[in-house]
Amino acid sequence: MQYHLNGFTPGDPNVHLPAKPWRDPAGALPETVDVLIAGCGPAGLCLAAQLAGVSGIRAMIVEPKLSPMEKGQADGINVRSMEMFQAFGFADKVKRESVWINEATFWTPLPDNQSHIHRAGRVQDVEDGMSEMPHVLINQARVHELYLDIMRNAPSRLEPDYGIKVVDVVVDPEAEDYPATVTLERTDPDREGQRETVRARYVVGCDGARSNVRRAIGGTLHGDAAHQAWGVMDVLAVTEFPDYRMKALIQSGNGGTMLVLPREGGYLVRHYVELESLGEEERAADRGLTIDDIIAKAQQIYAPYKFDVKDVVWWSIYEIGHRLTDKFDDVPEDQVSTRNPCVMLAGDACHTHSPKAGQGMNVSMGDTFNLGWKLISVLTGRADPSLLHSYSAERWAAAKGLVDFDHEWSRIVGTRFEDDADEELPRFAREFKKNLRYTSGLTIQYQPSALIGDASHQALASKFEIGMRFHSAPVIRLADAKPMHMGHVVEADARWRVFAFAGAGDAGQEGGAIHDLCDFLENAPNSPIRHHTRRDEDVDAVIDFRAVFQQGFRDLEYTEMPSMLRPHKGRFGLCDYEKVFCADVKLGEDIFDMRGIDRSQGCIVVVRPDQHVASILPLDAFDELAEFFAGFLRQA
Amino acid sequence: MQYHLNGFTPGDPNVHLPAKPWRDPAGALPETVDVLIAGCGPAGLCLAAQLAGVSGIRAMIVEPKLSPMEKGQADGINVRSMEMFQAFGFADKVKRESVWINEATFWTPLPDNQSHIHRAGRVQDVEDGMSEMPHVLINQARVHELYLDIMRNAPSRLEPDYGIKVVDVVVDPEAEDYPATVTLERTDPDREGQRETVRARYVVGCDGARSNVRRAIGGTLHGDAAHQAWGVMDVLAVTEFPDYRMKALIQSGNGGTMLVLPREGGYLVRHYVELESLGEEERAADRGLTIDDIIAKAQQIYAPYKFDVKDVVWWSIYEIGHRLTDKFDDVPEDQVSTRNPCVMLAGDACHTHSPKAGQGMNVSMGDTFNLGWKLISVLTGRADPSLLHSYSAERWAAAKGLVDFDHEWSRIVGTRFEDDADEELPRFAREFKKNLRYTSGLTIQYQPSALIGDASHQALASKFEIGMRFHSAPVIRLADAKPMHMGHVVEADARWRVFAFAGAGDAGQEGGAIHDLCDFLENAPNSPIRHHTRRDEDVDAVIDFRAVFQQGFRDLEYTEMPSMLRPHKGRFGLCDYEKVFCADVKLGEDIFDMRGIDRSQGCIVVVRPDQHVASILPLDAFDELAEFFAGFLRQA
Repeated sequence: MQYHLNGFTPGDPNVHLPAKPWRDPAGALPETVDVLIAGCGPAGLCLAAQLAGVSGIRAMIVEPKLSPMEKGQADGINVRSMEMFQAFGFADKVKRESVWINEATFWTPLPDNQSHIHRAGRVQDVEDGMSEMPHVLINQARVHELYLDIMRNAPSRLEPDYGIKVVDVVVDPEAEDYPATVTLERTDPDREGQRETVRARYVVGCDGARSNVRRAIGGTLHGDAAHQAWGVMDVLAVTEFPDYRMKALIQSGNGGTMLVLPREGGYLVRHYVELESLGEEERAADRGLTIDDIIAKAQQIYAPYKFDVKDVVWWSIYEIGHRLTDKFDDVPEDQVSTRNPCVMLAGDACHTHSPKAGQGMNVSMGDTFNLGWKLISVLTGRADPSLLHSYSAERWAAAKGLVDFDHEWSRIVGTRFEDDADEELPRFAREFKKNLRYTSGLTIQYQPSALIGDASHQALASKFEIGMRFHSAPVIRLADAKPMHMGHVVEADARWRVFAFAGAGDAGQEGGAIHDLCDFLENAPNSPIRHHTRRDEDVDAVIDFRAVFQQGFRDLEYTEMPSMLRPHKGRFGLCDYEKVFCADVKLGEDIFDMRGIDRSQGCIVVVRPDQHVASILPLDAFDELAEFFAGFLRQA
Repeated sequence: MQYHLNGFTPGDPNVHLPAKPWRDPAGALPETVDVLIAGCGPAGLCLAAQLAGVSGIRAMIVEPKLSPMEKGQADGINVRSMEMFQAFGFADKVKRESVWINEATFWTPLPDNQSHIHRAGRVQDVEDGMSEMPHVLINQARVHELYLDIMRNAPSRLEPDYGIKVVDVVVDPEAEDYPATVTLERTDPDREGQRETVRARYVVGCDGARSNVRRAIGGTLHGDAAHQAWGVMDVLAVTEFPDYRMKALIQSGNGGTMLVLPREGGYLVRHYVELESLGEEERAADRGLTIDDIIAKAQQIYAPYKFDVKDVVWWSIYEIGHRLTDKFDDVPEDQVSTRNPCVMLAGDACHTHSPKAGQGMNVSMGDTFNLGWKLISVLTGRADPSLLHSYSAERWAAAKGLVDFDHEWSRIVGTRFEDDADEELPRFAREFKKNLRYTSGLTIQYQPSALIGDASHQALASKFEIGMRFHSAPVIRLADAKPMHMGHVVEADARWRVFAFAGAGDAGQEGGAIHDLCDFLENAPNSPIRHHTRRDEDVDAVIDFRAVFQQGFRDLEYTEMPSMLRPHKGRFGLCDYEKVFCADVKLGEDIFDMRGIDRSQGCIVVVRPDQHVASILPLDAFDELAEFFAGFLRQA
C-alpha cells in the first residue's frame, strides 16, 4: 500500500487523517445530505465504506436496530467477494479469521439401508486457477465490523445513525438540488416514533426484504415460494459425522435434506435443515416450529452418526422464496431517457433467494460495489448523473440470473435422483460441480453499454472476458522486484485502471507501442487522462495507467521507462514507482499465457473501479480509448 | 485461528474477553509485580505482548518517554522475525503495510570514471525456499504499535506506564517472594524526579545501550568501535538513481559508502551514509555533523544521479560499535548452580551493533521471544526457576555470533576490494550473498541442553535442524482440506508442540506407530502430556500434539484417527479438528521430501514455544520423550 506521499504520518496507515466534520454525529440530524443509505446490512455498509473515503461527500447511513449486529444471518463469502474485500484492504483479515471451504462432500442413503447415510462423492470446492482467493465462511456481523472499521478510519469518520428507520421517501423530479425528502422515524425507546425529515440528493434502500424505500418508489418483489419450511441453526455440537468440517450436503433416506457448513473459529457449525412442506398460502413462521424441531430433524438425517448439540448460538425458521423487483431505481422504464435515478435499491430490498447457495450477502455487496463508484463519480462532478441508469440495468440482470439459478438449485437439492451406477459422483454432486463457477460469483458479466465495450478485440486477451471481473494473475513489480497480484492494484477507490500489456520485444523504448501510448496519454489533446483529470490533481486521480512487460524484471530498467510510467505526484512531486510490472518468468506463472494475451501485439485492458473488464483495445487505439472514457466522463 | 470453544463471543476474535483487572492503570503504582519490564522498545514490547496473554501474571512495562514512539530508529524485519510475527498473528498486517526487499544491488565506481557509479551486480535478497516469509522494512514505531495492540487486546489489557524510568534494581537473593526492589523515577514534567519503589519477582532490562538495569547488576558492554561517523536519514526525495526502490549498496569512488533502503508506503527511503573518520577517543556526536552533511555526502556518492531531498523525516549521526555484556542475567558464572536469575537483560541493554546489517531490532525481539515462554512457564508453576539460566546461555551465544558477524560485515562494507574481472559479482556482493542466511536470522542454533536434545536422531528429519528454528512447509489439514503452513500452528502462546510424522502406510490404524504413540500419550503413566497437564486443563494446554501423514487428505478418514488426535476440549467437550495434517501431494510440495523426513520410519519432532526444534526422536521413543519433558517441566 502507498502512503507518506505528502509527508510522513505516524501510526496505522489504514487510519486516514480526519477531514473537517460536516456534522456533529451526536447532534441534530442534518437538513440535507448527499446520500442517505437505509440499512446497515452488507449492501448498505459496503456502499457507506466507499463513500466514506471521498472527502466532500456527505453520506449518512441509518439503521433501525439500536446497535451493530452480533450474530446470525448470512455467512458465505464467495471468491468474488473475497476479491472485492482485497480492494477494500481487509481480505487478509478475513482469510485469517474465517473458515475456508476447500472441499464439498455429498451424502446419500446407503443403498441397502435407507435410514443410514454414506459419503457418495466429493468435489473440490474452488477449482484450481479460478481465483487467487479462497471461498470462506464468516459471520455476517464480522463482515459488518470490517466495513465499519473502514468507515471510522476514513477521513469522514463515518458512523451509522442507529435507532433510525426510513419510513418514507418522496421524490420531486423537478427539484434542483435535493429531490428526495426522506421521512425518518426514531426506534430507540426514548424517542420511539418521533419523525424527522432529511432531504437527500440520493437515497439508497438497503433496508431488506420489507424495504420501506422500495415501497415508497412503488416497487414490489415478484416471484414464488417453494412452500417448504427450513430451519437454520449455528451450533456447538459433538458428532462422529466424518465431514463435520467440510461443506457437506446430505440427502437422507429419512426424508430430509441438510446442508452442513463449518464456520469460523474451528468449532461452530451451521446447519440448514429441511423441515415440513407448507400449504399454498402458509408461511413457515405459522407452524410454530422451534429449535427442538430443527435439532430432532438434523439428528434423524445424520443417522447413523450421533449429533449432540451442546450450545445453540442462533437459529431461525424460514421458507424459500425467489423474488425480484422490476427495477432497482425509481425511474420507470419509459422515462429512462428523460429522468435520472434518485432512489436506488440494493440487496434484499430488490431480490431475495434461498440462503443455501450462499449467495445473498455476496450479491448484495456486489450491488453496492457496482453503485458506489458511480455515485462517487456523479457527486464529484466527474460523470453525468445519467450514469446511474447503468446500476439498475447491470445489477437487475445479475440478480435475475441469480434468482433463476437459485430456483434451479433449490429444485436439485430437493430432488431425490435415481443415481446412475456408472457415474463417479451422484447426480446432485455433478450439478453442484457444474455450478461452481456460478456460486463463486465469477459468472456475472455486464452487457455492452457506455461502460462496457464490445467484444471486437476480445481475442487480444482472450481470458480477460469483457464485462466479467478482471481475473488477477501474478506479476513482478519492476521497481522493487516484488512478486504480487496484478488485480490487487485495483482498490476500492472509484478510480479506473488502464493496463497496457506490451507486445514482444517492447521494453518501453522510443518508437515502441508502449512509448507511443504513453506519449498519447501524456501529451495528446484528446488524451483521456488529460481530458478528465483536473489540473490540480495527480495524473492518476481518475485513470490509473500501468504497464506490464513480457520480460523478466532483471531485463528492464525502470529509469528507461516513458515518463508517463514514472509519474511525479503530491506536494513534493515524488515519483510513483508502482506503475510498471513484468511477467513472473521465474515461477513460470506468466500473466500473458495465463490470460491469453496476444504476445506479438499486446493490448490495452480497461478495468472499471468495481474490477470488471470494461474494454480491450489494441495498443494504438488512441481514439477509441479517448471515446470510451468520453462516453461517460466529463471534461475536467 | 480457533475461537468460540466455550461459547460464541461476538466481535473481533483478536480481542479477548477482559480478565479482572489487578491494578488501576490510572491509579497508584502497585507494590509488587511478577515481572517488571524496563523499556518499550522491540525487546520490551515483544516480552510484554507474551506475558499479557497469560491470566494471572501481573506484568508492568515502564518507559521514560511520555508517549509511544512515532518514527526513526530501526526498520529491518528479517524473515525469521516475520515468522515470529506470524506466531503473534500480525504477519499479514506487516506484509501488507511494509516494503518487501526482494533484490539487493551493488554499485561501484565506473572503471574509467571513478566519480560516477554503475551497477556492478545484483543478488536475490531472500533465497528460494529459505522461508515462506518475505524480508521487509517498516518503521520500528509501527512494530511497537502492533505489539501494543496485542497487549491491549489481551485479557490483561496491558498498557505501558509511560513517563517512568528504572533507575536502580537491588536484588536480595535470600528473599522468598519478590527478590528485586526496583527504584522508579517519574519523567513527566509534573512529577519529574519523583521516586517510588516496586518489588518484583523478575526484572527484565530492555532499557537500551545505557541500561540502568545492566548497571544495577554490574554488567558492562565490552567491545570496540570502528571510529567512523555515519549518518542515517529517512527522506522523501526525487532521484534518477535506478535502484531507488531496491536495497542498494554503493561503494563510490568519491570516498564514501552508502546503503539505500526503500521503506514502507512506496515513497520514503532510508539512507545510511558513511561520513568522517573519528579519532581514537572521539564520538560522532562531537563533530557537530548535521543533516546537511549527510545530504551533501549522499549527493556526492549518488553521482552522476541527481538526488533532490524534498522532506527529511528523521535523521541521526552515529558511530559503529560492537559491544556485548558478559552475561544476560544477574547470576555470576560461578553461582549458576546455586542461584536462579532474577534480573535479565535483552536487546541493546546487552548487545549493540551497527544498524547496517539490519539486525538490531530482530535480535532484540529474538531475545525476549526466547525469554517470554520461559518466564511464563516459571510463573505459572510449570517449570522450575532454574529454567531461566538457559536464557543467558542461549541468547548470549546468539548475540556473540551477531557481534562477530557485524564486525566482519562492517569491515567488508568499508573495504574497497580490487575486483576480479572474471567474477560475475563484485567481491562485496559475493560476501553479501554468502551471508544471506545469516542476516535472515535463520542461522541461530541453540546448543544441546535440557531444552535442546542431541543430534543422534537428526537423520530422521535431516532438514529440521535441532536447535534451529522449525522451518515451515505446506501441508493440508485433514478435517477441512485446508492448504496451510505447518509452522503456523506454532503460536506465541508458550505451549510446546510435538509433531508426529507418520511412516509410510501408516494411516493412524491400530497397531501402527502413530496409534501406539497416541496410546502412550493418552494412557501411559509416564506420558508427558498426562504428567505435565493439570486435570482441569485441556489436553493440549502444555504440549500440543499433532500428526502429519504421507497420504493425501482424500485417502484418510478423520474419524478413524486415534482419539488422541481428536481431543475433546472446553466446557462443552467439543472436538478439536485441527490436529491432523497430510502432505500436499497435489501441488507436489511434500513436507516429507522438503524436510528430509525418513519416509519409512517417520519421526517425532518436538518444537519449543519459540519455534526452535528441540528434539527429533523415533516414533517409538516413548521413554526418551517423557524424559525430555521431565527434564524441565514439573509434574502437574
